[in-house]
Amino acid sequence: MKYILLATLCIVSQLSFAQNTNGLDNLMPMPQQMELGEGRFRLTTDFELAMSAERGPRLSKAATRYLDRMTNRTGLFVRQGIICSQDTSSSAALQIRAERLGITSLGEDESYQLQISTESIVLSATTDIGAIRGLQTLFQLISVDEEGYYLPVLKLSDAPRFQWRGLMLDASRHFLPVDVIKRNLDGMEAVKLNVLHFHLCDDHGYRIESKLFPRLNEVSSDGDYYTVAELKDIIKYADDRGIRVMPEIDVPGHASALLTAFPELGSKDTTYSLVRNAGVFDPTLNPIKEQTYVFLDELFGEVAGIFPDPYFHIGGDENEGKHWNENVAIQAFMKDKGLKNNHELQSYFNNRLFKILKKYNKTMMGWDEIHTADTPEGTIIHSWRGRGQGLTDTTTLFNAARQGFQTVLSNGYYIDLMYKAEDHYNTDPYFGYDLDDEMKANILGGEATIWSELVTPLTIDTRIWPRMAAIAERYWSPVEVNDVRDMYQRMEKVSLILEHYGLEHIRNQEVILRNLANSRKVEAVRNLVNVLEPMKGYTRNPGGFMYSVFSPYTKLADASTADAPDALRFKYMVEDFQAGKMVSDDMSAQLNVWIANDAVIQETVNISPILGQALPHSTNLKIMAQDAIQALEYIETGKKSSKKWYKASIQHLEEAKSQSGRVELQVIDPIATLIEMTQIMKSTQN
Amino acid sequence: MKYILLATLCIVSQLSFAQNTNGLDNLMPMPQQMELGEGRFRLTTDFELAMSAERGPRLSKAATRYLDRMTNRTGLFVRQGIICSQDTSSSAALQIRAERLGITSLGEDESYQLQISTESIVLSATTDIGAIRGLQTLFQLISVDEEGYYLPVLKLSDAPRFQWRGLMLDASRHFLPVDVIKRNLDGMEAVKLNVLHFHLCDDHGYRIESKLFPRLNEVSSDGDYYTVAELKDIIKYADDRGIRVMPEIDVPGHASALLTAFPELGSKDTTYSLVRNAGVFDPTLNPIKEQTYVFLDELFGEVAGIFPDPYFHIGGDENEGKHWNENVAIQAFMKDKGLKNNHELQSYFNNRLFKILKKYNKTMMGWDEIHTADTPEGTIIHSWRGRGQGLTDTTTLFNAARQGFQTVLSNGYYIDLMYKAEDHYNTDPYFGYDLDDEMKANILGGEATIWSELVTPLTIDTRIWPRMAAIAERYWSPVEVNDVRDMYQRMEKVSLILEHYGLEHIRNQEVILRNLANSRKVEAVRNLVNVLEPMKGYTRNPGGFMYSVFSPYTKLADASTADAPDALRFKYMVEDFQAGKMVSDDMSAQLNVWIANDAVIQETVNISPILGQALPHSTNLKIMAQDAIQALEYIETGKKSSKKWYKASIQHLEEAKSQSGRVELQVIDPIATLIEMTQIMKSTQN
Repeated sequence: MKYILLATLCIVSQLSFAQNTNGLDNLMPMPQQMELGEGRFRLTTDFELAMSAERGPRLSKAATRYLDRMTNRTGLFVRQGIICSQDTSSSAALQIRAERLGITSLGEDESYQLQISTESIVLSATTDIGAIRGLQTLFQLISVDEEGYYLPVLKLSDAPRFQWRGLMLDASRHFLPVDVIKRNLDGMEAVKLNVLHFHLCDDHGYRIESKLFPRLNEVSSDGDYYTVAELKDIIKYADDRGIRVMPEIDVPGHASALLTAFPELGSKDTTYSLVRNAGVFDPTLNPIKEQTYVFLDELFGEVAGIFPDPYFHIGGDENEGKHWNENVAIQAFMKDKGLKNNHELQSYFNNRLFKILKKYNKTMMGWDEIHTADTPEGTIIHSWRGRGQGLTDTTTLFNAARQGFQTVLSNGYYIDLMYKAEDHYNTDPYFGYDLDDEMKANILGGEATIWSELVTPLTIDTRIWPRMAAIAERYWSPVEVNDVRDMYQRMEKVSLILEHYGLEHIRNQEVILRNLANSRKVEAVRNLVNVLEPMKGYTRNPGGFMYSVFSPYTKLADASTADAPDALRFKYMVEDFQAGKMVSDDMSAQLNVWIANDAVIQETVNISPILGQALPHSTNLKIMAQDAIQALEYIETGKKSSKKWYKASIQHLEEAKSQSGRVELQVIDPIATLIEMTQIMKSTQN
Repeated sequence: MKYILLATLCIVSQLSFAQNTNGLDNLMPMPQQMELGEGRFRLTTDFELAMSAERGPRLSKAATRYLDRMTNRTGLFVRQGIICSQDTSSSAALQIRAERLGITSLGEDESYQLQISTESIVLSATTDIGAIRGLQTLFQLISVDEEGYYLPVLKLSDAPRFQWRGLMLDASRHFLPVDVIKRNLDGMEAVKLNVLHFHLCDDHGYRIESKLFPRLNEVSSDGDYYTVAELKDIIKYADDRGIRVMPEIDVPGHASALLTAFPELGSKDTTYSLVRNAGVFDPTLNPIKEQTYVFLDELFGEVAGIFPDPYFHIGGDENEGKHWNENVAIQAFMKDKGLKNNHELQSYFNNRLFKILKKYNKTMMGWDEIHTADTPEGTIIHSWRGRGQGLTDTTTLFNAARQGFQTVLSNGYYIDLMYKAEDHYNTDPYFGYDLDDEMKANILGGEATIWSELVTPLTIDTRIWPRMAAIAERYWSPVEVNDVRDMYQRMEKVSLILEHYGLEHIRNQEVILRNLANSRKVEAVRNLVNVLEPMKGYTRNPGGFMYSVFSPYTKLADASTADAPDALRFKYMVEDFQAGKMVSDDMSAQLNVWIANDAVIQETVNISPILGQALPHSTNLKIMAQDAIQALEYIETGKKSSKKWYKASIQHLEEAKSQSGRVELQVIDPIATLIEMTQIMKSTQN
């Protein structure tokens, strides 16, 4: 066997689109090192899998899942079903070797090696968790040629760049049923993430069954909470995939749910109720009452008993201290204790929580506001604030790391804000700096957060996936893997692979499209939605009060995703066209689809009023596409466009920028490029 | 307000397709009585809902679900979110009135009345369960015109024809996770079904957590079983929808799972293991050991304690008695007791179970084999055998009813066999007979059964829905509602409505299509699948051994459904054409789609080997479509086809009948009709 050494992964990327169905196009996150060989391992019904030593039920179950997905993807009837300790045949084509059982904990060895020859596959790892990471790569590698399914001959060595690779799910603002959590854990397994940060208490609800404080379930959950049995089931499910589950109880702010049940713990003498909208609210725990700490001690103890992970997130963010300022006793307490401001008071509060958590053997973690002058050593600082909060992106992360705190980065990974995958992909936990080893050691990794104000069980997958795969690559793969266009191309392929993990990002979007079309004939609506993106940042929900928990989330903004796929494709077409790399035919074809599409949308609205908000976008798209067709004609005939035409076209672009239905049209920039090109032509149009 | 009396529902049906988006087209099951008025109640953001009296959390929750579905379907931002006891405003447009709280039990009052004017809606019922039935009708009635969403002005009075309207889910052969059960309960709510028959123990696994017999979970479940907490959650979920949950523990046959854990209870001195294929197997409980009854007493007691429903299903089917015949002690016992054959021995067994169940206040129910000469009075006979088993369809049902036993019909409702919805729709629990009142009283209703040998969580919805809506109509609506074509047209609309209940019958089919196409571009594969149906009856899985539990269920046979929609549409086109009711244009358009489709399928197979089995069907479809185009030309020009062409075309039809990929092409009959029509033309083709 002859191996071709591929010095860098970029070369792999260049190769990867030569053949449409090559498994290398599906890899995400990209492995650390890979050498492609010659030849192909054929997947057939004879395929057999063995574990060279009994490595516990976790690996058996993962191998069973692999086999199930492989057979369902390829349609092959293989002999094996459930892999168990008896499956150790040395003649099996796939040999899985793990030296020891891993522990689902921070810093565990997740490395693995894969060696595929034409006859056999060896997957070896230090831990079973590493082997599980390798099984996902093996699934992504499934390739197709005229003879059938195969795996490319290769040697691959892989390990993560960061040890903390997380996704935060917010089950407070919109409750997420157990099956939603489980399928997202499956997705996390697919892209080698290892932390589920579970945001379980906020202004909108307390989501953990409490045997000590049943009132939290009775009045602070709308009946939507996880039983202890369900949480243990989720934790087991995650552990089976080598994924930690860290709970968050957000205090002292974001406390409406806690105070709805226990108003006596509030900083204001009033009653409280669950929040139904979005925003930062005033209800805050009273940090000067001993009763508060007695309560939190018991509550944290109860929660700590459910979650075995040694990390415990106390939130700590966005406490604006309004009720503290208004409370005479609190002001007196601060004066008495020499606490100069609310930050120092919150620091006092945090230090008490730190001791409580220590008692339960938990390391305290909190959003970056908890980082003050006297933050206890060993606290983990979760960096979420950045430019949007008037800081540099790196402020809270680097400040903490420099002072010796371990940190995790979420600034730049707020995926609920519906920025493009590219933006997150380009955010690196080191921000491109050449950091010293101590700084590097303190930056544990990153975490994407999907705050759920505008997210429901139906839409959450379309908000997280497939983008999360690109972010997972940022956390796992070498920093040199950073070609955005290549990322998008692989992401599109991984998107289909993720369906085999039960994710519903494609199928649930289609459900919304059918409702928008009021029919199974969704093509026109899909054509339009594929160039729309929801308004980004906090602009979709101005002031937090346009939407409530109970609003419909089946509209244009919920159907569209953060990376409008046809707009993206068109953007690259224009780039290639500008670079002289392609002729205009594909662009024209796409433009003509958009032009014809408008008539169908206009008709569809007659049977589907919910689609009404699409009309201005549909018309604007048609008009811009008509201009673009004209622009291509100018360009191809080498004629400069008339001032009048140019001005009108620019005007159309401006008009197309206005939002309707909380979405924005995305093809404006590439069409602007085409229109600008008509002005640099040599001859003038008469 | 002026009402137009619609004497029969058939008139409604005739009206119903005049306007594409009229809610009357969506009704399924059809109500008992309806008078359509003039005018429209407009759905707007001002919509408000009230319960005129506090009728318990069940109705509040159902109203909340209604509101959630209504807002998500229409996109309207209404004021209310969670309906609670405070929502009693007399000015609210929708007033829901229930006289008393119902009990989820056989025979409970499920009637309701609906009165919609241009200004208000009154939904009144005797019980909250009746009101819940009415809410589903109200959701189906949502209509569209140029001004937006509305409800038609009408008066409606409705009640079920049968009190037992069930769906049996088999969680033994393929385990069905909790979310699968819950979404199917939502679907059952949508179409007013009221019994979930939960088949929880068979040869493939025991699916109930057992605290008394943990071995059942350890060795007889592959780890897949419902915890008691999950079952209680499911039962509560069902009760919230007025749906009973009846457990089945199938004995004495179908006992492989029980005997894997407890071989000492078997009729043969051997060890047992879980079954992985389909069929009728020998393992049978030993009816002469007292230990068997001690075990069943404890087990039934445990299960009876979980399920509050007073009915308990003991299976009792397909015990062929092979191990009884081979067991000397059993033979001696029979001689001693004067039991002449295995039927009498099983009857002895059943009588002992009857007493055990009586102790737990349970009524015994079993498949029709349990009906023997000395079946205890009060047993419910579940009729499943019919023509396929050499009987008339009515034998087991009518025999039992005539002898004073209450009965439920499942023969004719085996939806796992993938017969067309029409077949089930045309099966009536009275079989068209004019029965006397006693017979009628004994026939409680019907139950569709989805045995899960060939069914997975991914495909189960596509096997049950939307067909189940048509069966539900058979159980609920007047017998006169029986127009098959009208049923199919409404079923197609209800199919979209069911998506709002979380059912995955459309979206999960699309997942399989994407895997078959190895791409998001599924149009060609969908075109083909839409004229294919899985092999029917037991023919898909010959001998039960082609498929195992672990086979891939993502192939052509899993993508296709029991009612190939395009084939159905084409069939009706040909019928209309034959009747002179339509010109050939629509047919030609469809035929040309099929002709062009083949080239795309041929190409797609190159990147998706799993689609290989589609090739013969795709080619046959093209050839037949070409013949049909030619036939239309003969017919329209009034020319008789040549013998040679005719013979070749008939030959093509014959060739198209062969299966590939366990599916069969469905458009053969209507194309045969067109080809035959070319032979009765007057002039002869030269």
